[in-house]
Amino acid sequence: MIIVMKRYATQDDIQNVIDKIREMGYDYQISYGGENTLIFVIGSEKELGKEKFIFLKNVDNVIQVAKPYKLASREFKSDNTIIDVNGIKIGGEEVLIIAGPCSIESEEQLMLSAEIVKNSGIKFLRGGAFKPRTSPYSFQGLGESGLRLLAKAREKTGLNIVTEVMDTSEVNLVAEYADILQVGARNMQNTKLLQMLGKINKPVLLKRSFSATLNEFLLSAEYILSSGNENVILCERGIRTFVEYTRNTLDLNIVPAIKQISHLPIIVDPSHGTGKSDYVIPMSRAAIAAGADGLLVEIHPNPANASSDGEQSLTPESLIRLMSEVKGIASSVGRKIL
Amino acid sequence: MIIVMKRYATQDDIQNVIDKIREMGYDYQISYGGENTLIFVIGSEKELGKEKFIFLKNVDNVIQVAKPYKLASREFKSDNTIIDVNGIKIGGEEVLIIAGPCSIESEEQLMLSAEIVKNSGIKFLRGGAFKPRTSPYSFQGLGESGLRLLAKAREKTGLNIVTEVMDTSEVNLVAEYADILQVGARNMQNTKLLQMLGKINKPVLLKRSFSATLNEFLLSAEYILSSGNENVILCERGIRTFVEYTRNTLDLNIVPAIKQISHLPIIVDPSHGTGKSDYVIPMSRAAIAAGADGLLVEIHPNPANASSDGEQSLTPESLIRLMSEVKGIASSVGRKIL
Amino acid sequence: MIIVMKRYATQDDIQNVIDKIREMGYDYQISYGGENTLIFVIGSEKELGKEKFIFLKNVDNVIQVAKPYKLASREFKSDNTIIDVNGIKIGGEEVLIIAGPCSIESEEQLMLSAEIVKNSGIKFLRGGAFKPRTSPYSFQGLGESGLRLLAKAREKTGLNIVTEVMDTSEVNLVAEYADILQVGARNMQNTKLLQMLGKINKPVLLKRSFSATLNEFLLSAEYILSSGNENVILCERGIRTFVEYTRNTLDLNIVPAIKQISHLPIIVDPSHGTGKSDYVIPMSRAAIAAGADGLLVEIHPNPANASSDGEQSLTPESLIRLMSEVKGIASSVGRKIL
Amino acid sequence: MIIVMKRYATQDDIQNVIDKIREMGYDYQISYGGENTLIFVIGSEKELGKEKFIFLKNVDNVIQVAKPYKLASREFKSDNTIIDVNGIKIGGEEVLIIAGPCSIESEEQLMLSAEIVKNSGIKFLRGGAFKPRTSPYSFQGLGESGLRLLAKAREKTGLNIVTEVMDTSEVNLVAEYADILQVGARNMQNTKLLQMLGKINKPVLLKRSFSATLNEFLLSAEYILSSGNENVILCERGIRTFVEYTRNTLDLNIVPAIKQISHLPIIVDPSHGTGKSDYVIPMSRAAIAAGADGLLVEIHPNPANASSDGEQSLTPESLIRLMSEVKGIASSVGRKIL
Repeated sequence: MIIVMKRYATQDDIQNVIDKIREMGYDYQISYGGENTLIFVIGSEKELGKEKFIFLKNVDNVIQVAKPYKLASREFKSDNTIIDVNGIKIGGEEVLIIAGPCSIESEEQLMLSAEIVKNSGIKFLRGGAFKPRTSPYSFQGLGESGLRLLAKAREKTGLNIVTEVMDTSEVNLVAEYADILQVGARNMQNTKLLQMLGKINKPVLLKRSFSATLNEFLLSAEYILSSGNENVILCERGIRTFVEYTRNTLDLNIVPAIKQISHLPIIVDPSHGTGKSDYVIPMSRAAIAAGADGLLVEIHPNPANASSDGEQSLTPESLIRLMSEVKGIASSVGRKIL
Repeated sequence: MIIVMKRYATQDDIQNVIDKIREMGYDYQISYGGENTLIFVIGSEKELGKEKFIFLKNVDNVIQVAKPYKLASREFKSDNTIIDVNGIKIGGEEVLIIAGPCSIESEEQLMLSAEIVKNSGIKFLRGGAFKPRTSPYSFQGLGESGLRLLAKAREKTGLNIVTEVMDTSEVNLVAEYADILQVGARNMQNTKLLQMLGKINKPVLLKRSFSATLNEFLLSAEYILSSGNENVILCERGIRTFVEYTRNTLDLNIVPAIKQISHLPIIVDPSHGTGKSDYVIPMSRAAIAAGADGLLVEIHPNPANASSDGEQSLTPESLIRLMSEVKGIASSVGRKIL
Repeated sequence: MIIVMKRYATQDDIQNVIDKIREMGYDYQISYGGENTLIFVIGSEKELGKEKFIFLKNVDNVIQVAKPYKLASREFKSDNTIIDVNGIKIGGEEVLIIAGPCSIESEEQLMLSAEIVKNSGIKFLRGGAFKPRTSPYSFQGLGESGLRLLAKAREKTGLNIVTEVMDTSEVNLVAEYADILQVGARNMQNTKLLQMLGKINKPVLLKRSFSATLNEFLLSAEYILSSGNENVILCERGIRTFVEYTRNTLDLNIVPAIKQISHLPIIVDPSHGTGKSDYVIPMSRAAIAAGADGLLVEIHPNPANASSDGEQSLTPESLIRLMSEVKGIASSVGRKIL
Repeated sequence: MIIVMKRYATQDDIQNVIDKIREMGYDYQISYGGENTLIFVIGSEKELGKEKFIFLKNVDNVIQVAKPYKLASREFKSDNTIIDVNGIKIGGEEVLIIAGPCSIESEEQLMLSAEIVKNSGIKFLRGGAFKPRTSPYSFQGLGESGLRLLAKAREKTGLNIVTEVMDTSEVNLVAEYADILQVGARNMQNTKLLQMLGKINKPVLLKRSFSATLNEFLLSAEYILSSGNENVILCERGIRTFVEYTRNTLDLNIVPAIKQISHLPIIVDPSHGTGKSDYVIPMSRAAIAAGADGLLVEIHPNPANASSDGEQSLTPESLIRLMSEVKGIASSVGRKIL
């Protein structure tokens, strides 16, 4: 930890900081030569605490340099994490595609969707049974009966199932049905939920919240990792900015940033990220070109009749086009489609 | 709902939209005179659904004009909601002040804080027992034993208690101890939690999330209201922007906006909103001047030793200064301090 | 233009709006059936003016549906604009690459850079002679002598020259030397400069400002177009958001958005957009995959000694890698590198 | 400057950094004790340059601690700058109010506005002759004939004149007519304009751009100060965020931040800051309560007929209410209205 003194700090002000450091039992080094006097405190930043020094007289700033996450960091584990779901490897050479409807609406709609997904060569089906909706008057999902429909779709098609869990009281229930449990953007900092997901033995797909910094995103992953579950897949799904032509601003820059800093796989959701079906295919190509490990896309047999998010869902025909275009990009970056 | 056609839409494109409206059983009106042809569909926007029309050929946009919230709206209830907590009125002429430490750390720290709060003439004590922290390695709060300390502080000082609830599994427990239950910014869209809080008979203090629009904020309140609890206090606590000199950007503009649109009381948290104790007093004055119904401020007997958020906590001396300065502002806007 | 009445607006309030419309000499249509009464005013929105109606009693909102730009719109010109620079076509099948140093520092540095650019198969050299720097104490560019060095580099290598113009007083001077004149993000709304650039006969590369919406960006292009210059190339270079791992947030979503709405070519600057040389190659791949018409990248013979923006400049070796990787992506989206 | 090594940096990596520092002729200190090895380079950060070190192997980060502005800083000049305009003091005990129409539309409109302003007890009239409009099709101002009308208004009423300058070619012209020259948000980083304004002997009112950080804002002021003009008045006028209920997000937090860091006066423009006349009075009260040195507000004899920004202009009646309410707040913070 580095304590930056104000330019006009006196020798007494500096001594005051030093006394505090000694009182706490730590060692320090001091550097007088620059524009501001700097005092390095030697010890764990977590234990030291910024607030111990920021109030002292003529302290300008307290800089913490250690990264706050550990298990999620590439400094902790240099090799990419590869997650195995029923024999399929996520985070390796192959690109993961997950597709399906935003909400499960009926058996017919889900089965039709599952067929479309399977026929496009995709191995993972998504579908929401518990839905976190902005308005209490919007469709809130079919709940447990939706989960049973997902199980039926898996049985029929062999697809793996990805579905959202919203509350600690539902973790065990959802874990019975899902192959991958999804945490939505609104729950990225629901720390009780994250801790409980750290105790199950199924992979967790953790979506970035609308306003999460990279540090906050990795610290949410760290909640799961440090509770005992190593299988976390990160998912970029758009951040909140002033921009008006997309529902959110899909931030692909986080893909190379995560790849540099963390060993965890990261996939991209261009459906929520843009909110417009017209932009899903170009931004899917861009995501894979940027180095993403996969895509999460919304499809619907008939988007105009969807109970939620129809505006951003692909038609069956567009899904076929997506797969063909993404295959080209994947191969030009040395990967293939799962 | 208004369907805006592209400028070069043909008569066939328009007919196509009309056919869809009729097929759904709705009436419409059409306006040809402007730069774009407009088609107005007569009926509830919620039932109509934007996605039914946005995909039709040469539709440029679908505009929904109805406000998505009802119970939270001043159109529904024109008089200000006044909430009674043990005989004290919130949302009326008097300005509510809630003060206390971010986290409850020990009996001594809480009792000392409670004395400071009481001696400043304040009637509400805040203190966190369950803490939603960004990092799993940060202090997570004392949990239930923290709640018991709050009860003890109430017994000793007569102060009313405000404390956070983070998970559905803790609602009943927290409701036993608190006079007002707080929902933190990270849980503003934890819809299961909101629904459960709609079923208790204690007021809920709902903090705005980092990236919530006004619509989203009021829709979260609507979850509580529509589940049966009318006593919701809104709280602005800073939004996420590019700005670097404050931890968050305290957005006081929402105060007159809420006052215009909703009947619910709104208070301001300048401690989290700015993240710097030096800015808490000026921004508290500004909040009351803007028309806020109260303040939520963090204090600590010794901020330099706080377990969390010490950097933004007021000292006992600053709290006295705050109260004195805020009283002047309150009286110049025709209010008084509770 | 659509006037939305408040739900509780009376018949008198509505009549009041109608009287105003008639007084102004316009026709209208009224729709009573929905949750809010709507009044369509028939006529040009530009002439009508939102402020005429927003103050009338119980008017909730005034919605303008016409797009504010015309010449920049695909509704005005459906075919892509192809710009010819000395026989090279921009905006067509071929992808434009512009590379060079942020600032021109010396003859040696510029000639070395020009060789590197030429040897990578690139046909456009960028280099700043007039530099808009955040601090008055930063290097402000070589000015006119920098322009002369650019001319020398062109003579020696045959490369086309792209350089920035910052002030109306320098437009003619820069136009003498440049093949494409660049307007920087900070000047995107310098309307006097835009108008003067509309009067020259060289293409203009218009960079998006840090906080420009799509409407504002296209309206700045419209200033140039409506002043008589049809050759405008748009450039995305990152927007300002809360994100901390990139210097700006490169917003690739604008690429498909512009392609849908406008006929103008759009290129991407991943160097300023991310501010980190490590992210330039992945984000360049992503830009082309998203459908961008080209790239603007910063290179330096020795980035560690650059006078400005060294942190985001590519080395000569990385430029070769960039070209090879981008070629693969371009071919998989049916394009080739210029 | 502090160089932070990665945790797994080797002794060779550290030696490599040291060699570079020595080669550049600087001294250093090294601290091994913390989680990351830190190397402090002793010397001016401006000369050192971050890019010299960021590319070296296993360097994690390079931290610069010196503030980039000097003349604008309170460390350079601890007393508040008081600016004298024809005997009136700005930045002292008295609060400055500037009011007037957004655009000068006609002699009648301006004279009427001037009367309203004068009759409210205000001493400064604003009015735009050169207007930076987003669209080329919007009213661009009366230009020089507008300036002559301002001179006439001054002659008639004795009011001081504040008006905008947009381009270097107009600085001398505008300086002939104005008592204070305004730089608009869109030109905050038009560095050629700022440098020229540093050479005149009239005060400059510098508006914060939509996306300026505090550092950028003060560095723009520094351009003027370092060119020789000490009389700079800062103006907060709203930043760009995701928020939808105001045109911009008026960021009052910058008021205490500037007061702490700089000696320059800062005023607030709630008209552009909120974009809604209903919010101007509450946010004006809040601005003064937060410690602002003044207000810049838009008024119009008849806002519904304004050529620009009618939606945010106060009526003559509201201006009287504003003055009365702001007087109360000013007196409760120990100031009075100018």
